[in-house]
Amino acid sequence: MAVDVSKAVCQQLMESSTATLTSVLRLHGLKNTFMHGVAPLGPGMKMAGPAFTLRYIPAREDLDEIPMDNLKDVQRVGIEQVLDGAVFVIDARGQTSAGTMGSILAKRLQVRGAVGIVTDGAYRDTPTIVASGLPAYAAAMNAHTNKTIHHPSEIQVAVSCGEVAVFPGDIIVGDEEGVVVVPAHLAAEVAEAAAEMELKEAFLLEKISAGASIVGTYPPDEATLAEYEAWKSQR
Amino acid sequence: MAVDVSKAVCQQLMESSTATLTSVLRLHGLKNTFMHGVAPLGPGMKMAGPAFTLRYIPAREDLDEIPMDNLKDVQRVGIEQVLDGAVFVIDARGQTSAGTMGSILAKRLQVRGAVGIVTDGAYRDTPTIVASGLPAYAAAMNAHTNKTIHHPSEIQVAVSCGEVAVFPGDIIVGDEEGVVVVPAHLAAEVAEAAAEMELKEAFLLEKISAGASIVGTYPPDEATLAEYEAWKSQR
Amino acid sequence: MAVDVSKAVCQQLMESSTATLTSVLRLHGLKNTFMHGVAPLGPGMKMAGPAFTLRYIPAREDLDEIPMDNLKDVQRVGIEQVLDGAVFVIDARGQTSAGTMGSILAKRLQVRGAVGIVTDGAYRDTPTIVASGLPAYAAAMNAHTNKTIHHPSEIQVAVSCGEVAVFPGDIIVGDEEGVVVVPAHLAAEVAEAAAEMELKEAFLLEKISAGASIVGTYPPDEATLAEYEAWKSQR
Amino acid sequence: MAVDVSKAVCQQLMESSTATLTSVLRLHGLKNTFMHGVAPLGPGMKMAGPAFTLRYIPAREDLDEIPMDNLKDVQRVGIEQVLDGAVFVIDARGQTSAGTMGSILAKRLQVRGAVGIVTDGAYRDTPTIVASGLPAYAAAMNAHTNKTIHHPSEIQVAVSCGEVAVFPGDIIVGDEEGVVVVPAHLAAEVAEAAAEMELKEAFLLEKISAGASIVGTYPPDEATLAEYEAWKSQR
Amino acid sequence: MAVDVSKAVCQQLMESSTATLTSVLRLHGLKNTFMHGVAPLGPGMKMAGPAFTLRYIPAREDLDEIPMDNLKDVQRVGIEQVLDGAVFVIDARGQTSAGTMGSILAKRLQVRGAVGIVTDGAYRDTPTIVASGLPAYAAAMNAHTNKTIHHPSEIQVAVSCGEVAVFPGDIIVGDEEGVVVVPAHLAAEVAEAAAEMELKEAFLLEKISAGASIVGTYPPDEATLAEYEAWKSQR
Amino acid sequence: MAVDVSKAVCQQLMESSTATLTSVLRLHGLKNTFMHGVAPLGPGMKMAGPAFTLRYIPAREDLDEIPMDNLKDVQRVGIEQVLDGAVFVIDARGQTSAGTMGSILAKRLQVRGAVGIVTDGAYRDTPTIVASGLPAYAAAMNAHTNKTIHHPSEIQVAVSCGEVAVFPGDIIVGDEEGVVVVPAHLAAEVAEAAAEMELKEAFLLEKISAGASIVGTYPPDEATLAEYEAWKSQR
Repeated sequence: MAVDVSKAVCQQLMESSTATLTSVLRLHGLKNTFMHGVAPLGPGMKMAGPAFTLRYIPAREDLDEIPMDNLKDVQRVGIEQVLDGAVFVIDARGQTSAGTMGSILAKRLQVRGAVGIVTDGAYRDTPTIVASGLPAYAAAMNAHTNKTIHHPSEIQVAVSCGEVAVFPGDIIVGDEEGVVVVPAHLAAEVAEAAAEMELKEAFLLEKISAGASIVGTYPPDEATLAEYEAWKSQR
Repeated sequence: MAVDVSKAVCQQLMESSTATLTSVLRLHGLKNTFMHGVAPLGPGMKMAGPAFTLRYIPAREDLDEIPMDNLKDVQRVGIEQVLDGAVFVIDARGQTSAGTMGSILAKRLQVRGAVGIVTDGAYRDTPTIVASGLPAYAAAMNAHTNKTIHHPSEIQVAVSCGEVAVFPGDIIVGDEEGVVVVPAHLAAEVAEAAAEMELKEAFLLEKISAGASIVGTYPPDEATLAEYEAWKSQR
Repeated sequence: MAVDVSKAVCQQLMESSTATLTSVLRLHGLKNTFMHGVAPLGPGMKMAGPAFTLRYIPAREDLDEIPMDNLKDVQRVGIEQVLDGAVFVIDARGQTSAGTMGSILAKRLQVRGAVGIVTDGAYRDTPTIVASGLPAYAAAMNAHTNKTIHHPSEIQVAVSCGEVAVFPGDIIVGDEEGVVVVPAHLAAEVAEAAAEMELKEAFLLEKISAGASIVGTYPPDEATLAEYEAWKSQR
Repeated sequence: MAVDVSKAVCQQLMESSTATLTSVLRLHGLKNTFMHGVAPLGPGMKMAGPAFTLRYIPAREDLDEIPMDNLKDVQRVGIEQVLDGAVFVIDARGQTSAGTMGSILAKRLQVRGAVGIVTDGAYRDTPTIVASGLPAYAAAMNAHTNKTIHHPSEIQVAVSCGEVAVFPGDIIVGDEEGVVVVPAHLAAEVAEAAAEMELKEAFLLEKISAGASIVGTYPPDEATLAEYEAWKSQR
Repeated sequence: MAVDVSKAVCQQLMESSTATLTSVLRLHGLKNTFMHGVAPLGPGMKMAGPAFTLRYIPAREDLDEIPMDNLKDVQRVGIEQVLDGAVFVIDARGQTSAGTMGSILAKRLQVRGAVGIVTDGAYRDTPTIVASGLPAYAAAMNAHTNKTIHHPSEIQVAVSCGEVAVFPGDIIVGDEEGVVVVPAHLAAEVAEAAAEMELKEAFLLEKISAGASIVGTYPPDEATLAEYEAWKSQR
Repeated sequence: MAVDVSKAVCQQLMESSTATLTSVLRLHGLKNTFMHGVAPLGPGMKMAGPAFTLRYIPAREDLDEIPMDNLKDVQRVGIEQVLDGAVFVIDARGQTSAGTMGSILAKRLQVRGAVGIVTDGAYRDTPTIVASGLPAYAAAMNAHTNKTIHHPSEIQVAVSCGEVAVFPGDIIVGDEEGVVVVPAHLAAEVAEAAAEMELKEAFLLEKISAGASIVGTYPPDEATLAEYEAWKSQR
């Protein structure tokens, strides 16, 4: 799993839509890659970067109703260790009756170079987070502090988010539709294929917009493919 | 059921709110006409047209993981047969872990004259669909392709959408609140009554805004009704 | 429970975020104060005022499919009795397959001085309500009239809204994240403490934005607290 | 609502199935009378009696984490006031993450003459309750004490249980399928009609078992009705 | 789809567990064959037979609150046309707030030779149905009559039940765990392979019970397979 | 966390009900200890033992659709390492559309000395597991194999089960109501206090059964406590 994915590949992935990326991943046999129930919290959000993961389990009062110690609390440790360019992914078991972090911690992640945050739970201070410009995806907004229902258990382990498996280092790509998980070892290949698919679909959408039937066009037959190749070579 | 509803009636229905239409339908004894859990995907959406229906059942790998054949795939056949002015309605059983169609097919529907799309599932490429200007209503956004969970079973049969019965040709009206189903045989009558109710409620809202109590005003007593008739005759 | 909270306190509460208020309430031992599943229906909403409550139970045809009598129908009576500056809170048992009120009644509440409306159900005519400028929070939009599923049972009793207890007179504070319930007897104290916490967090966010680690800053150690006191005295 | 229903009527209602009772109530225009999601907790349960209601709202720590005072706690007061022959109905808002009462309180109700208990929440000590022979209906079992999530708010008010309206004194009838609510003012009439319907359906089931088609039999045509009348007069 | 499956094959399928059948179907690439949320309503239920399907859509008052006509009502027509040896499968869209049929219709199906009934909704008169000995599977029990929420739309079309696709003639197999759908064209092959797998797993379970490690045993290595073949030849 | 709890303590815990144990744990400030939505799968189940945990994350085809290797597959490794007297606890994220294990693996656990199995997902071969006499608790039954939706990620880490935190070694106690988690370091103390509470509640239940009011009895006043002490000393 310890594949290092370059920023260039992340950038290329971000230029494709999550819909295109799920289609390319499907060609690799992966059919469960888009997070269910996780949506962007504001308009125009877009991001791509390796996952830095945090796993929450249910809170227990003797562990969670204690003074905060930034050097021991697993969430806080993770925030100070987040990698430049990473997307911070929190497994909240889909529970939304408390937030998973607020605006100050989100700001710290942003300052440290994180390019986005994702959870299948909620955030608190959501309006401030959205205003900060950090792409943020979640299942809900909830002002209660995380310790109400969550105990931070580990960082950088495999997690579930939106019922998709996320391994540390997997590339997390978000757009205005939601979030897709690209396994690290496939990232470069997927980025390349997705760029090509984006181009082809742009061409096809143009033809459809101009009145072509989907028959022969989508999926393209040989004539359409030839037309596409010609179009592409002239760009 | 084979009532043909004129474009003029559709236009008149679109000028009423879905709230007014449910009230008029209730007077006809119909109390379950507004789709549950189905919302507009962007601001300012408004549409009205006869339903062209597509029914999905759960996918089965031997039927759905095969090369796409536009002449046999029921979804694709439906898209090429959609009627001018229609609203394309997809019964997705309320399942949102995959899309029901993407931006290229939505564009084809738009080019062919469809005036809106509705599903109790999700779309993929939602941002592109929203940008296209085609009114689109759904329960969620999901980038996975339809065949992940859906098998297109039939077109133009009675379906369920948002737990409301939809027969082909029923008039589907959408506004910024959501979607109402007006049975075809009631459409003209409902359109007329709704226009009148809209006018009356505009008058009442004006009075309430000016400080009238709801007592005597909403519902209107005879004095208020007389006032309304006077107001109406002077417009 | 019969504590009267001043408009000044409500104003001060409104100047804090719901996230800050939940944190202050937690210091008083109250951990379930933010409504679950209730969200603002439009951008920029903000409100604070004492709760005026309405409780719905499930509808029964012989009680609810009768001519509307504004002098007997409990919802209507409540609307005409709402107090100036109040937030009208409707317990809808989390049911969203019908609205709890529409734009004309919402307008009447606004004219009578209500500063917001909240329900864990839905509204009808939501776009018109949002356009009116009255802050409105709900779990969904639904065009069906309330009597479809709701029977108005009492006003000004203790209710559940978003799985939080609400007593008449409790201060209901809404922002762009959602709604928090501040018990009346704690309102003044919480308002004061929240204002202080807002100030401190503004200072801390500034420091974090400038590159400070959370260690020593959030929560603040003695040095940071001293720095904060200095900063505060210079404002 | 203050109709007193005799024990004889309750007995007669108990001799009909809940399915028959919903059918008779439907003839009175009432279509939402069977509690959703509420089931008997053991085999062979059967009961009928007037509702004695208890309403829970969400717990608040300052009200609910205090020493128990049997003279003030609303649940406890209700238990000591329950009427002989009553069914104790608890509105738990459908929340099942804690119980609504345990075996000692259920035993006290039984000793005081209650003939059953119903909630759309859970009980704790469920196995002991079931073993006691008191008919008990709920949505789940949960060992946590009620105060974890519930605050007892009032007794003998209108409540919601399983999304059905329950007024104090309504007759609550349970069988092995679940629980139906018969409004007090209809109880005698419904009991009579249900007894007749039970008899007729027993006759029809006998005919169907013997090989009759449903055509002509269910619903019965005139010949079958005549046959039924003959059969009935010979019993 | 029009494969006729013999009673012998149905019998052989019924002798395997639903767990074994899902495993064999998985070898054919079919991974979604066991109905979700559908359970046997009584102990010891077991059945296998070709699906005879009924599709419900949401009710509409003008279609469903009318006198019952056994010659036109699609549910009733289906019941009188059910095939000997069939399992009657009702698509109820997972809605359980009313039954899909009651004990008289279930008895008629039984008399006509149906070997079981399945729905992802509920039944009414469930205790009577269970007592009749007809294997019955559902998501819940609910005494309300079907027309409260369901309109019978068609018989013998492809349906969804428990989020599995069911085509008329597919073999529906039920045991004490639940219900699996075996596509008709695979039935004979699956029945054969499942019988073999059952035998092998009986042998393996015996070994595991006697203390064997799963390593080498489950899945079996060559030595274990040889042992199995010897064991099998001696039966 | 590495507290070793004796078999005697487990035995003593098993002799108390889960309701009593949650009450004792509440006295230690722990209010979320009973698993939500997890129930015994058969009658008469009872168990207590230290948790041996297995964590599932969502499946990914390239990791999970491969030949089974008992030496590498984390589930299988866990089963062969389970400790004598342990309860095997599987975190299934509350997902029930596939099983988490079947009868052969459950039998292996039983042979190796496990005293129970718990999951917030489902099992397959449930009837066979129940028949084996191994106490088994789950949220549902589902015949699909685990790899359909689950990837076994780790053993012996902290997990969530039924929205309760479970650490390896915590004592898992099950009865006919469900499952409670007793933190290892509290086990001995809780066992002792629970035994005392059981005794006292048996006494109180006897008094209530004999007609005592709850006032003075439950909770007991000084006179009742004295009576209890006398009763206890005479046993």
